[in-house]
Amino acid sequence: MNHAIIGKSVTRTDLLGKVTGEARYAGDIDLPGLLYGKIKRSTVAHANIKRIDTSKALALPGVKAVLTHANVPRVLHAGSPHPRSASVTCDQYILDDKVRYWGEGIAAVAAVTEEIAELALALIEVDYEELPAVFTVEAAQLPDAPTIHQTGPGGNLVLAPVAFSRGDVARGFAEADLIIEGEYEGGRPTPAYMEPNVCACRWDGNGNLTVWISTQTAFMVRGIMAEVLGLPLHKVRVLVDHMGGGFGAKQDLFQHEFLCALLARETRRPVRMEYSREETFVGGRSRHPAKIWLKQGFRKDGTLTARQARVVFNSGAYGSHGPGVTIVGTSALLSLYRCEHIQLEGRCVYTNSPIAGAFRGYGVVQTYYALDIQMDEAAARLGIDPVELKLKNAVREGDIAPSNHALIGHGLEDCIKRGRELSGWDARRRQARPPTGALRSGWGLGCEMHGSSAYPGIQEQGNAIVKMNEDGTVVLLTGTAGLGTGAHTALAQIVAEELGVAFDDVSVVHGDTDVVPWDIGAFASHTTYMGGRAAQMAAAEVKRQLLARAARQLDVAPEELELGQGAITVRGDGMRGMTVCQAVMARKGVPAAQLVGTATYHPTKSYSFAAHYVEVQVDIETGYITVSQVIPVHEIGKVIHPVGAAGQIEGGIQQGIGHTLYEDYQIDLRTGRSLNANFVDYKMPLSMDMPPIHTVILETAPDPGGPFGAKGVGEDPIVAIGPAIANAVYDAIGVRFRHYPIKPEQVLQALARQAGTPTV
Amino acid sequence: MNHAIIGKSVTRTDLLGKVTGEARYAGDIDLPGLLYGKIKRSTVAHANIKRIDTSKALALPGVKAVLTHANVPRVLHAGSPHPRSASVTCDQYILDDKVRYWGEGIAAVAAVTEEIAELALALIEVDYEELPAVFTVEAAQLPDAPTIHQTGPGGNLVLAPVAFSRGDVARGFAEADLIIEGEYEGGRPTPAYMEPNVCACRWDGNGNLTVWISTQTAFMVRGIMAEVLGLPLHKVRVLVDHMGGGFGAKQDLFQHEFLCALLARETRRPVRMEYSREETFVGGRSRHPAKIWLKQGFRKDGTLTARQARVVFNSGAYGSHGPGVTIVGTSALLSLYRCEHIQLEGRCVYTNSPIAGAFRGYGVVQTYYALDIQMDEAAARLGIDPVELKLKNAVREGDIAPSNHALIGHGLEDCIKRGRELSGWDARRRQARPPTGALRSGWGLGCEMHGSSAYPGIQEQGNAIVKMNEDGTVVLLTGTAGLGTGAHTALAQIVAEELGVAFDDVSVVHGDTDVVPWDIGAFASHTTYMGGRAAQMAAAEVKRQLLARAARQLDVAPEELELGQGAITVRGDGMRGMTVCQAVMARKGVPAAQLVGTATYHPTKSYSFAAHYVEVQVDIETGYITVSQVIPVHEIGKVIHPVGAAGQIEGGIQQGIGHTLYEDYQIDLRTGRSLNANFVDYKMPLSMDMPPIHTVILETAPDPGGPFGAKGVGEDPIVAIGPAIANAVYDAIGVRFRHYPIKPEQVLQALARQAGTPTV
Repeated sequence: MNHAIIGKSVTRTDLLGKVTGEARYAGDIDLPGLLYGKIKRSTVAHANIKRIDTSKALALPGVKAVLTHANVPRVLHAGSPHPRSASVTCDQYILDDKVRYWGEGIAAVAAVTEEIAELALALIEVDYEELPAVFTVEAAQLPDAPTIHQTGPGGNLVLAPVAFSRGDVARGFAEADLIIEGEYEGGRPTPAYMEPNVCACRWDGNGNLTVWISTQTAFMVRGIMAEVLGLPLHKVRVLVDHMGGGFGAKQDLFQHEFLCALLARETRRPVRMEYSREETFVGGRSRHPAKIWLKQGFRKDGTLTARQARVVFNSGAYGSHGPGVTIVGTSALLSLYRCEHIQLEGRCVYTNSPIAGAFRGYGVVQTYYALDIQMDEAAARLGIDPVELKLKNAVREGDIAPSNHALIGHGLEDCIKRGRELSGWDARRRQARPPTGALRSGWGLGCEMHGSSAYPGIQEQGNAIVKMNEDGTVVLLTGTAGLGTGAHTALAQIVAEELGVAFDDVSVVHGDTDVVPWDIGAFASHTTYMGGRAAQMAAAEVKRQLLARAARQLDVAPEELELGQGAITVRGDGMRGMTVCQAVMARKGVPAAQLVGTATYHPTKSYSFAAHYVEVQVDIETGYITVSQVIPVHEIGKVIHPVGAAGQIEGGIQQGIGHTLYEDYQIDLRTGRSLNANFVDYKMPLSMDMPPIHTVILETAPDPGGPFGAKGVGEDPIVAIGPAIANAVYDAIGVRFRHYPIKPEQVLQALARQAGTPTV
Repeated sequence: MNHAIIGKSVTRTDLLGKVTGEARYAGDIDLPGLLYGKIKRSTVAHANIKRIDTSKALALPGVKAVLTHANVPRVLHAGSPHPRSASVTCDQYILDDKVRYWGEGIAAVAAVTEEIAELALALIEVDYEELPAVFTVEAAQLPDAPTIHQTGPGGNLVLAPVAFSRGDVARGFAEADLIIEGEYEGGRPTPAYMEPNVCACRWDGNGNLTVWISTQTAFMVRGIMAEVLGLPLHKVRVLVDHMGGGFGAKQDLFQHEFLCALLARETRRPVRMEYSREETFVGGRSRHPAKIWLKQGFRKDGTLTARQARVVFNSGAYGSHGPGVTIVGTSALLSLYRCEHIQLEGRCVYTNSPIAGAFRGYGVVQTYYALDIQMDEAAARLGIDPVELKLKNAVREGDIAPSNHALIGHGLEDCIKRGRELSGWDARRRQARPPTGALRSGWGLGCEMHGSSAYPGIQEQGNAIVKMNEDGTVVLLTGTAGLGTGAHTALAQIVAEELGVAFDDVSVVHGDTDVVPWDIGAFASHTTYMGGRAAQMAAAEVKRQLLARAARQLDVAPEELELGQGAITVRGDGMRGMTVCQAVMARKGVPAAQLVGTATYHPTKSYSFAAHYVEVQVDIETGYITVSQVIPVHEIGKVIHPVGAAGQIEGGIQQGIGHTLYEDYQIDLRTGRSLNANFVDYKMPLSMDMPPIHTVILETAPDPGGPFGAKGVGEDPIVAIGPAIANAVYDAIGVRFRHYPIKPEQVLQALARQAGTPTV
């Protein structure tokens, strides 16, 4: 099908505002009488608060209010955004008389300047009754471990262990010629979005609360805020204009957001609270550290016979997205590589550590890291080319995905094959590769599949309202979040294409819960897939009305009309027709009113695929690993905005390189204290560290449920890159790493072990 | 029918914000880098601008831009808001090289403070080539009168004369026993809204214009702004939050509004322009001064046999609403009192006077003043009680209204009859009334009818979007304007009633053209009638979806369900049911999304009626007329908010008393200079001047097209009060005044003439 706008890299609607500084973020909000809020944070990891004295803080001139557990509503609530979902855990208070991790908020101050608020924090006196603390999932699961929460199934579990199985795993292992098992471990990367968490709150005299906030989930903020504060939904207005990233972590509600609303209510003045960079670590959400025990059986020819896994996620001090991550991450092992006999168990464990939450790749980064490295191990043990082994077992059309939907097309095979060609994989394997000085080169392959929408336990829906103005220009009202990915540009393209108008003729209204239709938020790679499809459907409804008007005017049936490039013509008679603008105004002499279309879309589930071919250079003198090139091949259905999709892929690869090689948010395992909660000590790859990336996007399996066949791309790239690097490192130096990040000292130690040399 | 919310005087949604000062008006807009705009105004009434030198103004530190006719777009545009209506005249430039009235804007300045902008105005040098000026319709229509506009039909006519006729007027007069003719004249009252005209404009880097403005017609502002500035509609966003009145005048676009946008574009900074009180007169819009020659024939029994009229409206220097006012005001004489033979002519004439525009009562105030006074004259001449005469001729069910719609019900008769009872009219006429000192008491009756919606030449439509949240609370998105009348409260009542939820569960989003569906604006007493009906229809669509969900859940047909007070029950089985909230969430375990309903309503036309019984006291020593009590009886269909409706009636009466006795915006008839453009010299009745008003609202003829049968009430009260006062003055002192305002010196002069005493 020929598209006028879909598939074109139009200029993003948010571009100019961002480069000129005109774009407004929640942190830019300034209001008459604005106060500044700050949070006092715990200096111990696990304790009861025996006494908290705010009198000196309150006496400080300029301090307008101080909140502690003693004077905030005591409502047990969820921090994650599915209050009515099966996979949610309600385990948070706004402020509690118990502290569960080092850095947890225990009091909040509103003052006329940020400096006074900081000073007041220091004046709050706290006596703790310290409790034994646990920081690892092993320690937390010991019989005599301290109990972190009274809620939940006990034993410091966030939720009862989840299990998935298929076939008879014992039989599968019995049929195997080769059985491999191993333990794999993922560290604690954090999303490190550019824009720290920030919100501003104002109450009006009628008890209406307005919240300006950086969030991916405005309607969830509205819902949970309303619930915790005891307000009906229409009295809470959540506004999100531009955002500087979220990567999933901003799906949660954070302590300061409730406190900001409460401080504003208490002081009757607007209050703004903004995290420092340190607080984005301490009070933010990291990826779940995970341990995966994985065992698989293979026939000699590479056929998988059985897979068994136990996955344990470290949720930190609160449940947050733990249930969802456990279900999605564990069940992901049902798929990617076909296997008849599978048995999986997933656990999520409380520890006295910083909170883990939603993060791009959502549990799958961890489990596919294990799976894809083990496939590489098996290939080596079986003497089969890993590409061949993965191709042989790759899921394909009709296979049942973890969500119980049948897959469409052969995306994974397509990606693997295309990448094999482009990377010259086969030729290179036949060549000898002489080492160059201290550098050892290697190639690796990582694969993945990821679903758009269909978060477990909930059924999602997209909504849209489309208005066409008298001059044929169009406004889309959408609840989808624009966290910086260009989502609203893609949605405008979809609407323009459907209505046959120019891209510039469409504007997008978003980020105001009073105004736009409900949306679950930026989740699960589904914004373009689900929100875009809803927008397309609403546009189609406007188109229907428009063609009906034109048909009356032209005295033909609507089905005889064609719409495109701002014109409506009678099919087969290009001379008969009218402009879109004329059709809107079709009643003579009448100032025409807008056409309005609304739509609700209940998606099924769409899977995207990727194969990343990666070359690394390992310096055997320093242990330093350099990614020297990446050939990411993605099958994502119809591409709406090629540059936007490529940007997602490149950004995901950069983040994935960071997680695999550098990034790890660390705590002192004796005290729970954060060790590197800043951009000096927490190392991330910069643009200068990035390798050439030769992105290839396939459109071989468009999804009939997506707009024009589009599927998601947001999470794919961060998943495949990790095991590709680890496998390339093995290819380069023959050392198998089963964890991330892989650090230079670990490389040196492993090389020394390999050579039988004692290490320091 | 039993209503839970309709007919209850709930607390207005805008009340608290207004009394606390929290409500935000366009004049409250403050933006970083804001500049202040000011207009330089002409000191002559008619002239060509030979030279305009802005160099000294531009050189003043703090001045950022100066605009004159030489550097603004030269687009001939309409000031009135029906660019595509038959009854519009395009005769304005933003700034012209010709001046057509004293006080017209000829240049504009933007500066960093208001004071600097004012100083800069004084530094602009102008050389005029003065032209002969005309200030009266008589002078303007003389063959050698100067031509004010090159557009239009010529002869200083704004539009070709309009004519309406029925039957054979010569035959009608031949059948008459009594023929009365007279000339009637209306002055130049101005709306004197509390909030002066104000707007603020900002452009973003993408060329999108945001306009914060005090207007009744946000979408018309968008349309004309876009046209004049050459922008597509979706690039102009018009925002109106609260307003401090408009009374019709704020249906126009004003010079400063275009200039504000242009100054902002020129300076690349936001600009705010606010009228001084003087400018609300000079640069605002008054009621059209009018002269009505009216001739009627009567049989001895009071039956009307013929009516002939020539109406001439003084449009001032521009056309504005002249065409609409001429059509509506002239054609109004087709009705109110039945008559078989009618011949009417209406003219609208340019003069070098301040611009007349739309104003509550829209042409009808002038013509019904003439008609209702002449009916009183006829009654006196025929020896018939004026109430009897009016009752005998009053329009009734099935009569054809000026809009060609058949009337519903007998509203006018009902009003006249009820007022006769309540005022003790019949008993009093049988009593002798001894004079009390210098005071002479008299009673008079004034009648009117007024249509909601159906502005001539256009077909209107109401639009609404209603969203129901997960908890059953509701948001209405409406384009209707809230100029201070409580319109949005009434709309929220209608939505709450239709959906069976509490009034407090509904919030209203309005005043943002990007967001709300199109609306023509606050016009023609139609906001509740048309916008309310659209809101009701959109709510009904949500209700349909809601009951469908509940029906599935309860396993019954939707028709078997009843909705009310937040609950859905099976008809005849009160035990079976669910709450509205449960029904929204009807899919188990699923975070429910919003229900969204949209509706478009194409109204027909609805007429409301009123009879005002008024008592005056005339002081024969000072000539001072005091209105001592008013008994206004209004038939307006179903009343949505009784206190709101009564407030409209009382406010209209206060304005009408002002126009009839005090208010007249005067110009020097030699120079065209404004003489009383301020609240010291322009006299208005204050609250202390108000008589007791015993408002009675009848609901005897609900309109099937209105929400729950409601009709309009906005314009009715200002029409009937005027002739009631004039007729009461006649009753008190036997002097017939055929003009307004009736001033004390005129009373004294008339009394002297009556007594044969020479006057000073």
